[in-house]
Amino acid sequence: MNHAPPLMLLLAATLGGAALPAAQAAPAARQAPAASATAPVLVTAAQWTQMRAEGARSPLFAKEQQRAEQRVRAMMKAGIDVPVPKDKGGGYTHEQHKRNYQAIQAAGALYRLTGDKAYATFARDLLLGYAKLYPGLGAHPQGRGQIPGRLFWQTLNDSVWLVSAAQGYDAIRDTLSDADRTTIDDNVFRAMADFLSGTPENFDKIHNHATWAVAAVGMTGYVLRDTSYVDKAMQGSKRDGSAGFLKQVDQLFSPDGYYEEGPYYQRYALAPFILFANAIERNEPQRGIFKRRDGVLLKAVDALVQSSYGGYFFPINDAILDKGLDTEELVAGIDIAYAQTGDARLLSVAKTQKRVLLSPEGLQVAQALADNKAKPFAFVPTLLRDGPDGTEGALAILRMGGENGQALVMKNTKQGMGHGHFDKLNWLFYDNGQRVVTDYGAARFLNIEAKAGGIYLPENSSWARQTIAHNTLVVNEQSHFGGDWKKGQPLAPTPLLFAVSDDTQIASARMEGAYDGVSFTRTQALLSHPSLGEPVVLDLLRVTGSKAARYDLPLHFNGHIMDVGFKTQSAVAARPVLGKANGYQHVWIDAASEPTSEARSLTWLLDGRFYTYRFASTAPSRALIGESGANDPSFNLRREPMLLQRVDGQAVTTFYGVLEPHGQYDGTAETVRGANSRIDRLTHYRGKDADVLVLDLAGGKQLAVGIADDPAKGGSHEVSGGGHSWRWDGGWKRFDTGTRTGKDGK
Amino acid sequence: MNHAPPLMLLLAATLGGAALPAAQAAPAARQAPAASATAPVLVTAAQWTQMRAEGARSPLFAKEQQRAEQRVRAMMKAGIDVPVPKDKGGGYTHEQHKRNYQAIQAAGALYRLTGDKAYATFARDLLLGYAKLYPGLGAHPQGRGQIPGRLFWQTLNDSVWLVSAAQGYDAIRDTLSDADRTTIDDNVFRAMADFLSGTPENFDKIHNHATWAVAAVGMTGYVLRDTSYVDKAMQGSKRDGSAGFLKQVDQLFSPDGYYEEGPYYQRYALAPFILFANAIERNEPQRGIFKRRDGVLLKAVDALVQSSYGGYFFPINDAILDKGLDTEELVAGIDIAYAQTGDARLLSVAKTQKRVLLSPEGLQVAQALADNKAKPFAFVPTLLRDGPDGTEGALAILRMGGENGQALVMKNTKQGMGHGHFDKLNWLFYDNGQRVVTDYGAARFLNIEAKAGGIYLPENSSWARQTIAHNTLVVNEQSHFGGDWKKGQPLAPTPLLFAVSDDTQIASARMEGAYDGVSFTRTQALLSHPSLGEPVVLDLLRVTGSKAARYDLPLHFNGHIMDVGFKTQSAVAARPVLGKANGYQHVWIDAASEPTSEARSLTWLLDGRFYTYRFASTAPSRALIGESGANDPSFNLRREPMLLQRVDGQAVTTFYGVLEPHGQYDGTAETVRGANSRIDRLTHYRGKDADVLVLDLAGGKQLAVGIADDPAKGGSHEVSGGGHSWRWDGGWKRFDTGTRTGKDGK
Repeated sequence: MNHAPPLMLLLAATLGGAALPAAQAAPAARQAPAASATAPVLVTAAQWTQMRAEGARSPLFAKEQQRAEQRVRAMMKAGIDVPVPKDKGGGYTHEQHKRNYQAIQAAGALYRLTGDKAYATFARDLLLGYAKLYPGLGAHPQGRGQIPGRLFWQTLNDSVWLVSAAQGYDAIRDTLSDADRTTIDDNVFRAMADFLSGTPENFDKIHNHATWAVAAVGMTGYVLRDTSYVDKAMQGSKRDGSAGFLKQVDQLFSPDGYYEEGPYYQRYALAPFILFANAIERNEPQRGIFKRRDGVLLKAVDALVQSSYGGYFFPINDAILDKGLDTEELVAGIDIAYAQTGDARLLSVAKTQKRVLLSPEGLQVAQALADNKAKPFAFVPTLLRDGPDGTEGALAILRMGGENGQALVMKNTKQGMGHGHFDKLNWLFYDNGQRVVTDYGAARFLNIEAKAGGIYLPENSSWARQTIAHNTLVVNEQSHFGGDWKKGQPLAPTPLLFAVSDDTQIASARMEGAYDGVSFTRTQALLSHPSLGEPVVLDLLRVTGSKAARYDLPLHFNGHIMDVGFKTQSAVAARPVLGKANGYQHVWIDAASEPTSEARSLTWLLDGRFYTYRFASTAPSRALIGESGANDPSFNLRREPMLLQRVDGQAVTTFYGVLEPHGQYDGTAETVRGANSRIDRLTHYRGKDADVLVLDLAGGKQLAVGIADDPAKGGSHEVSGGGHSWRWDGGWKRFDTGTRTGKDGK
Repeated sequence: MNHAPPLMLLLAATLGGAALPAAQAAPAARQAPAASATAPVLVTAAQWTQMRAEGARSPLFAKEQQRAEQRVRAMMKAGIDVPVPKDKGGGYTHEQHKRNYQAIQAAGALYRLTGDKAYATFARDLLLGYAKLYPGLGAHPQGRGQIPGRLFWQTLNDSVWLVSAAQGYDAIRDTLSDADRTTIDDNVFRAMADFLSGTPENFDKIHNHATWAVAAVGMTGYVLRDTSYVDKAMQGSKRDGSAGFLKQVDQLFSPDGYYEEGPYYQRYALAPFILFANAIERNEPQRGIFKRRDGVLLKAVDALVQSSYGGYFFPINDAILDKGLDTEELVAGIDIAYAQTGDARLLSVAKTQKRVLLSPEGLQVAQALADNKAKPFAFVPTLLRDGPDGTEGALAILRMGGENGQALVMKNTKQGMGHGHFDKLNWLFYDNGQRVVTDYGAARFLNIEAKAGGIYLPENSSWARQTIAHNTLVVNEQSHFGGDWKKGQPLAPTPLLFAVSDDTQIASARMEGAYDGVSFTRTQALLSHPSLGEPVVLDLLRVTGSKAARYDLPLHFNGHIMDVGFKTQSAVAARPVLGKANGYQHVWIDAASEPTSEARSLTWLLDGRFYTYRFASTAPSRALIGESGANDPSFNLRREPMLLQRVDGQAVTTFYGVLEPHGQYDGTAETVRGANSRIDRLTHYRGKDADVLVLDLAGGKQLAVGIADDPAKGGSHEVSGGGHSWRWDGGWKRFDTGTRTGKDGK
C-alpha cells in the first residue's frame, strides 16, 4: 500500500500544530524517519507536547487529567481483562469491553501527557489482548437486529469501540516494537475496519449508526496511513460517493443544523460527525470539512444548544428528560466548535459542562475559561428548518426574557424516523426556569436493569409516542398517521409564518395528511404587554375535516391545580379510564364537564408562579381533567396531570386559548402577589377568511391579534364583532387598544 | 408611677452598650436629662451609633439596610394610609396594617442608621395616624375566635403589631415634641398595652399567642419607662407569677428546647421569646434571662436547627413543607443566639439565611461572616425530650454521614395540641439530600386565596392529620385516640432506648392508650456495615392487643417504583378507594396481593439513588400499593405513593423491615452502579422475650440485631433459629457474623 500521502499529511499536521519553540517539537523531530509512519496524527506530537507543558496550568484540563489517571490506574491495578463476548447491553462482557476502549483511549492520552511509559504499556497489552481475541470472533451470540456486532451485540457499539481505541492507539503506536505494531495493526484495526466497511447494510446507510462506522474506519485509515480506509469512509464502501461521510453530512442535517430525530438524538449523532471532522481537518485541512454546506456541522452544535432550556434539551420524540448540555457528546462538540470558531458564547456552555476533552481543543477551552473569556450564550428566537434542503417543516423556538424567561417550542418538524412521536404541531412551554407545558419524552429508564434492561418500554409505544400524550389535535381517538411512522416520514407540516418583534413573536404551520381528509393549522404567539406581568402564549388551532368527527385537544401541564374555573362532575370514588387504545387506555379521568362554547379557565401553581390557561372552541366542547398512569401494572409511567378539550360531531372547528404566567408565591416570606390573572376575558371573532382573538386586560386595555386562514399569504382581511372591527393587510396583525370602547390601535 | 428604676436601667443599658469612644456616645450624652426618659432602650443610642459607623463595611448588613430603605421609601412615596379595620387575613386593611408596623420598625432603624430625619417623621406620622384611629376602635368586625383583635381579626396580630411598632418607636421617641410623644405614648402604646394586658383569656395563657402579647406589653413598658407593664409581662396580668413570660419560658419548652407542636410552630413561637428576652437582657441583664433553665431559650434555637434536613424543618404535625432555616423568625433566633454565645456553627446557618437583623446582633453576625468565622453546623444524633419536664416522650433523631447523609426521625413525642397529628411512633427518613420516607405535612396552601384563603383545608383534618397518612400503626381503620387530640394530649409514648455508636444508632419507644387495649413498641436502628453501600434502617414494630383486629402499617415513600418484588392483582382499568373514613377515603388502590408471611420487597428510584424496602410480619399480611388523591374534587391533595401492609384477625403481631439506600444512577453519563440490593435476605426469629432480625448480606457476611421486648430493661436474652443462637445481656445487641455458618460475632 502507498505510504506517501499519509506522510505528507503527517508533516502538514505536525507543522500545523507546531506553533512552538523547536526545542519542544524536538522529540517528534529527532526520530523523523520512523516517525513518518508511526508518529501520532489524530493529535500531533507537537500538540501533545504543548498540552503536557501547559495543561497543568488550566484547572479544568488538569482536573480532567486527574480523573482519567484515577480511572486508568484503577484498571491497571485490576489487570487486563478482555473477555469472550457473551452478554447483551448492561451485561458484564458488554460493560468490560466498554471500559476497555475508554481505558485504551485514556491511557494513550496519559502516556503523552505524563510521559509515563506504564500507560503506553497498559494500552499495548489491552490491544494485544484484542489482537488474540478478535480474529476468531463471529457474530455476537446476542446479536441484535440484522447487523450483529462482534465485540458487542450491535455493530454500533463495535464502531464506537474502534473510534475510541484508534485515538488511544495513535498516541502510543510509535512506542511499539515492529512486531507488536504489526500484530495490532492487522489483527485489531485492519480486522475491525474490514469488518465494518465490509458490512454495507450498515456502513453505507445514511444514518448516524453508519456515521460511527465511517468515523471508525476513517480514523483507522489515518492512524495506519491507509488511504483506502479514508476513501471508503468519505465515499462509502464502493468509493463512489453513493454513501459515506460526505453524503451523511449533506443529508443528515438541515441547512440550519437541525437533526430530524430531534435534540436528544442529535446530541448522540453529533459526536462521530464532530470527532471525525476534527480528524479530517487535522490530516486533510484542504478538504475544508468544517466549511462544508456553509459550516453545517458547526451550525449543528449551535442549534443543539438553542434547543435547550435550563440546561436540558427539549424532550421531543424519544428523549430522556434529564439529558442536557452537560452530556459527554456535547463536550466534544463545544470544545471542537470553539477551536474552530473562537466563539466566546460557547465557553459559557463549556463552563456549565465542567468538562473538557484531553485534546488540543479541550486545552484551548480550559485556557480560555481560565482567562475568563466566556460570554453568555444568547438564547434567542430561532427557526430551525428540517430536512436536508430545509423544506420539510421546522422547529420554531420563540423566546422572551432570556435564559430563564419564556420559551415556546412549536414542533412543526418532520416525523424523525422510528424515534419520532406522532405529534404534528405539538407545543412545549417553559417559564421561570421550569417545564410548564410538557412533553412526556420517552417511556424508558436508561440502563436500569429492573426496567427491561433499560431499553424502550412497551409504554413508549402505547403512551409516549401516541398523539394523546402530546399537546396537539387527536381525531377520533387515533394517533397521527395511524401510529405508523413510515406513513408519516414523507409528510411534513408546512411552515406558514415566523416573525419576531419586541413585544410579539409569532409562528404558524399547517398539517395535512396526518388524518385522511383533515387539515389543521396552528398559530401561536408570545405576547408581552405593559398590563401583563409576564408574556402570554396565544394559541389558535383551526381544523377542517371532510366529515363530522371527534376532535380532542390535550394539554399536559406541570404543577398543582389551584383553581378549576368551570363546573365538573368529579370521579372521586372510582376512577375510570379515558379509552381503550392509542394511549387513551393510560389516562385516568378525575373530572369531566358538560359541553359549552364559553371560555373556561384552569389555574395551577408551579415553583411559586401561577399559570392560568383560558381555552375555548367555536363548537361546544367538554373539558376533562385526567392523569397518566392507568393500565400500567409495572408502574412504568410517570403520573402527570392533563387537561383535555373535546369537540364531538363537527367537521370544522377552531380551538383557541391563552396561557398566562402570573404572580409570585414566596413560601419563606409567606407572601403572595399577582395571584389573580391579569386577563379578564378571552374572545374569538370569525371573519370571512380570518380570526381575531381578543384579550381584555386588567386596567381596561385590550390586546387583539388578527390571523388570516393562510398567514403566509398577503391580502386584506376584516373581522368584526363586539362593536369592533379589525382590518389588516397580510397574514396577521397585532392590535393594541387603549380602552375597550376604542377602535384599532394602528 | 415610679421612674427611678427604668432610669437606672437605662443608664446601665447605655453604659452596657457603650464599648465606644466618648465622642461617638456624645450625641446621646449631650441632652442627658431629656435622654433619660426618651433615649432608645431596646437598642441603645451607642449601639445605633456603632451600627451607623460600621454597618456599611459588612456586606450582609449593608444589603439588609438597602432592602429596608427601598421598602420604606416606596411607602413614603405612597403616603400615610391607616385604614379603619375591616378585612380578615389577606384582605386589604389587614395587609396595610401589616405593612405599616413593618414600616414603623424599619423607619425607626433607618433614621438611626442614616441620620435622615425624614424616616423619623414618617414613623411619627404613621403613629399619629394610629393615635387618631385606635382609641375609637372596638372588637374587629371580622373578629375571629373568642378573642378578636382591634386592628386585626385576631388579637395575635395586634400583639405582633405592637412588638414591631414598639421597636420603631423606641428609635425615634427622642425626636418628638413633648406633645406628639404624649399623644403617641397614651393613645397608641398605652392603649394597646392596656387592651392586651386587659384581656387575660389571651394574655395569661401558657401558649405562644400569649407570648406575643406579653412581649408586646413588656417592650412597651421598657420604651415608656413603665415598670407596671414590664411586671405584667413577666408575671401575668395579676403580677403573681401565675402567668406571664417567665412561666411561659418554664412550661412551653422542654429541657432540651423542644416545642411540643413541632419545628414548624417552634419557628413561629420562638420569635417573641427571643425578641423579648433580648430586650430584657438589654434592660435588666441582672435577670439572666438567657441563663434561665440552663439556657433553654438558646437550646431551643439549636434544637430547631437540629430538627431540619436539607435546610427544611422536619414537617411533623401541621407543617408547610417549604419552611426551613431561612425563615425570618429564625433569622432573629440565630442572630441573637450568636450574640449571646459566639457559637461559630450558628454563622453557617446565618450564611444560608442571607439575612440579618438591623440590630447590634445582626451587625455582629454580618461582621463575623465578613471575617469568615463561620464553622459548619454539626448535624448529629439528637434526642429531644418533650414536655416541660422532659418526661412526655421525645423526638429521636438518628444521623449518619452528616448534613446530606442519612437522617432517621422517630416521632415519639406528645400530641402537640390542636396542631398535632395522630401518628404515635411515626418515622421519617432522609438520604442523599432527599425526603425518602415522608410526612405529608399540612394540607394547606399558605396565603393562597384560591385555596380557601390559605387556611387549613378540609383535607387537613380528613387526610393530613389521620394516622393512615403517616408511617405508623393503624388499628381497625381508626386513627389514634379516635382522632381527638384532647384525648391524646395527656398520653405520651414512653421512650425506651436511645444509643449511638460508630456503626449503630438505635431508638425505641412504646405507646399505650392510642387504642383501647392495644400496646405497640417500635425499635428502629440505623446500621452501617462494610458490605453495605449506605447505612440501612432496621424497623421492628411489635403490637399486642386484647382482641383480634385489623392492623395496617403504611409506608409513604418518595420516588418512582422500579421493582415490585411480589405478586399483585393490579387495578389497572378502574381504580378503587381504600376505605370510607379516617383518611382511607383519600387513597386510590393500584395493586393488592394475597396474604403471606414471606418477606416482600419494593424498590424505588429517587434522585439517582435506589431504595429497597424489605418487609414482613409474623402473621400473614397483604401488601397494597396506593396513591393519595381520592375523594378530592378540588385537587387540594398532592398525589403521593404509599405501601400498606395489612394483617387481619390477629391480636398480636410483629411487623419488621429494612430500608436500604443503594447505588447511583447518573443520567448524564448514562451509568448505573449498585442497582442491586446488597441484602440477600431478611429473617426474623422470636425468643421467649425478645426478637432477632437477621440480614444476610451480599458477600456472605451476616448482620443481626437482638431486641428485647423491653429494650429499656436489663436481663439476659436468648433467641435461636436457622441453626443459630443469639445470646445477650441488656435491651439489645448487634451481632456481626463473618460467615452465614458462623456463630455470634461477640
